Amino acid sequence: MKAQLLTIGDELLIGQTTNTNAAWLGRRLSALGIRVGRTVTVSDDRTPIQQELERAYADASLVICTGGLGPTHDDITRDVVGKYFDAPLVTDDDLLARVRYYYTRRGRDMPDAAPRLAQMPEGFVALENPVGAAVGLWHAADDGRLIALLPGIPEEMKAIFDASVEPRLEAQSGVGEVHHRTLVTAGIAETQLQERLGDLSDALGTDVHLAYLPSTSGVRLRLSADATETDAHARLDEVEAVLRERAGRYIIGTGDVTLEEALGNLLRTQGATIAAAESATGGLIGHRLTGVSGSSDYFLGSIVAYANLAKQEVLGVTDEALREHGAVSEAVAEQMAAGTREALGATVGISTTGIAGPTGGTEEKPVGTVWVGYADASGARARRFQFVEDRALNKELFASAALERARRGLL
Amino acid sequence: MKAQLLTIGDELLIGQTTNTNAAWLGRRLSALGIRVGRTVTVSDDRTPIQQELERAYADASLVICTGGLGPTHDDITRDVVGKYFDAPLVTDDDLLARVRYYYTRRGRDMPDAAPRLAQMPEGFVALENPVGAAVGLWHAADDGRLIALLPGIPEEMKAIFDASVEPRLEAQSGVGEVHHRTLVTAGIAETQLQERLGDLSDALGTDVHLAYLPSTSGVRLRLSADATETDAHARLDEVEAVLRERAGRYIIGTGDVTLEEALGNLLRTQGATIAAAESATGGLIGHRLTGVSGSSDYFLGSIVAYANLAKQEVLGVTDEALREHGAVSEAVAEQMAAGTREALGATVGISTTGIAGPTGGTEEKPVGTVWVGYADASGARARRFQFVEDRALNKELFASAALERARRGLL
Repeated sequence: MKAQLLTIGDELLIGQTTNTNAAWLGRRLSALGIRVGRTVTVSDDRTPIQQELERAYADASLVICTGGLGPTHDDITRDVVGKYFDAPLVTDDDLLARVRYYYTRRGRDMPDAAPRLAQMPEGFVALENPVGAAVGLWHAADDGRLIALLPGIPEEMKAIFDASVEPRLEAQSGVGEVHHRTLVTAGIAETQLQERLGDLSDALGTDVHLAYLPSTSGVRLRLSADATETDAHARLDEVEAVLRERAGRYIIGTGDVTLEEALGNLLRTQGATIAAAESATGGLIGHRLTGVSGSSDYFLGSIVAYANLAKQEVLGVTDEALREHGAVSEAVAEQMAAGTREALGATVGISTTGIAGPTGGTEEKPVGTVWVGYADASGARARRFQFVEDRALNKELFASAALERARRGLL
Repeated sequence: MKAQLLTIGDELLIGQTTNTNAAWLGRRLSALGIRVGRTVTVSDDRTPIQQELERAYADASLVICTGGLGPTHDDITRDVVGKYFDAPLVTDDDLLARVRYYYTRRGRDMPDAAPRLAQMPEGFVALENPVGAAVGLWHAADDGRLIALLPGIPEEMKAIFDASVEPRLEAQSGVGEVHHRTLVTAGIAETQLQERLGDLSDALGTDVHLAYLPSTSGVRLRLSADATETDAHARLDEVEAVLRERAGRYIIGTGDVTLEEALGNLLRTQGATIAAAESATGGLIGHRLTGVSGSSDYFLGSIVAYANLAKQEVLGVTDEALREHGAVSEAVAEQMAAGTREALGATVGISTTGIAGPTGGTEEKPVGTVWVGYADASGARARRFQFVEDRALNKELFASAALERARRGLL
């Protein structure tokens, strides 16, 4: 199946918003074995939307549009699509009741424009939006061509895709021409991982393809095999075994598992709890751990001690350690990890103290320096890492290093 | 001047790379007053590149292509463009010497394919690449239409644009057709904001366009005015004055300012400090505040108290409050805000306690319920909000509500 994406919005064209929707949809469609042939971005104007829709629908058997589904006057996607399909807009009573409930439940008056959210081109199906007021829309033509209209707000687009678009696509024939399998690693850089895996040409042969997908929490190894081959699954099993043998403990799981989920599973299995003490990560460790539903089973809390006084008062970091070694030091990282473990009564404590940048670096401790501490019943240790120059990236890398340290400690 | 972007690369289509080049170019061209009418992404294949090039060049007076300029066999942009212009590829001796020097200087052998980097379609001009081996290419047709070919690697693309494309564009007549101005709001939903702003048709007239850009931290209002009008700036001033009069305290700043930056600026100006106590946000408030460089001037820390014991031990939340009202309650939110303010010695304390979901909701306190607390020298208060059903989205919305509460408290 061939797909085209039509992403609508002036904010994308002028670069006020980066088109993360296109990337996300590209990944998800590829994982389904659907090939994205073209992605087009146009402004919120009638003529260009109509032209691009016409063109995409002529070239591809699946068109996904994002944007322009809200209630305001510049949200014209449903009008334009309706005109294109020669389908009048009709108000759906169930949808109207849903929109009304959406606002009532939030204790808000329904805005005058909100009833637009209950309008659909005739012949379209509404796709439930679990996180917002605007539903998605779906149309399956007699000739098999499919079109999905999704909101532009990433959280809403993703939620509707997951709940309603993906299952519909999986039910289509011609989907799934490629089988994928992903092994997730942590705590090792792409080039080191590549060296460790060594020459894989024998294992991969000509029918399995390996892609390295690096991110701030680790490198994913994506294997792809032609699914028309009868033994595609067996071949993926073989290659997976080789990768596991060579990458060993660096592999934290498969599929979409995240580092914080892998760590959470370990903690839950062991009946253990975790507490963090964060300086350079500023709360990101807690944010990532609590991004996992059910994390209250094992995550007790995090002391974000940005100021030195907070390190001393709440975590019990000593004057001497701060004076003799500075806030970014082995001694302080160890005391922070031990301090939060004790303050919150956790099985393990982890900590970060470092220089995220762009300012604050010195010759001895340049931007990107971080000490990651780990404490358990046997005591506290810390290790130094040197990462990059970008503040946001450093925070992610520091947090990943601490989460991975905890995972290793529990293995 | 109207522009179109053609971004080439399979990695963009399958979402392995997010198309940050398009956003960056969109911002830079908009700043020059050049309107980007469409952005297209296609694969590294001859036919689609040729088709899209043809189409873009027919519709726009400026086409910028990124990607496919390297030395490898799938780098075919210069071939396709050469064919399109009926211009044979010729090797430029100066360029060849430059490519050779590029590798020599790095102590590397010149790859066999490298001489391709010295080839240009006849009639094209090379654009110096200060950071890589592949130069950019530029063509100005007799009819005034312009085309720039740039590498896909963001650092190289940006360096060539800055050094060689922007100056050429500034020298064109007809550049500067659109002026933008953005007002950033917080603490008000899109539809409520729209109602508050009311009928703007008189203020906007036919020459100023208003777009609503919602995100989890607020809604940005983007005004665009036709810059060929002599009084475009005066018109934007007029409309901005109307928006400010009607949206008042909801406006937190202009341009790209974020809620955490606006709050940080207020704190710094007042010589005030802030501390947070987070339950439902899990560390996100601290993470967002520390995303701003220099935040250590005013951010002291955050106590992420996920477990009840942590709320009691570190924040001094009382047994009674937890027993009588539950962890998600006005009393606990107030005690958390006051507790962190006191523990860290801050001017103001903010707190969140709520149910991010997907589990944990009850009839009385459904998923999406949050109490946001605020404490200063005059005491502590809390307010209840009801948000959505998605965990990640709720965490962002809860954090935004707390940050906005602090901003309001400081006004």
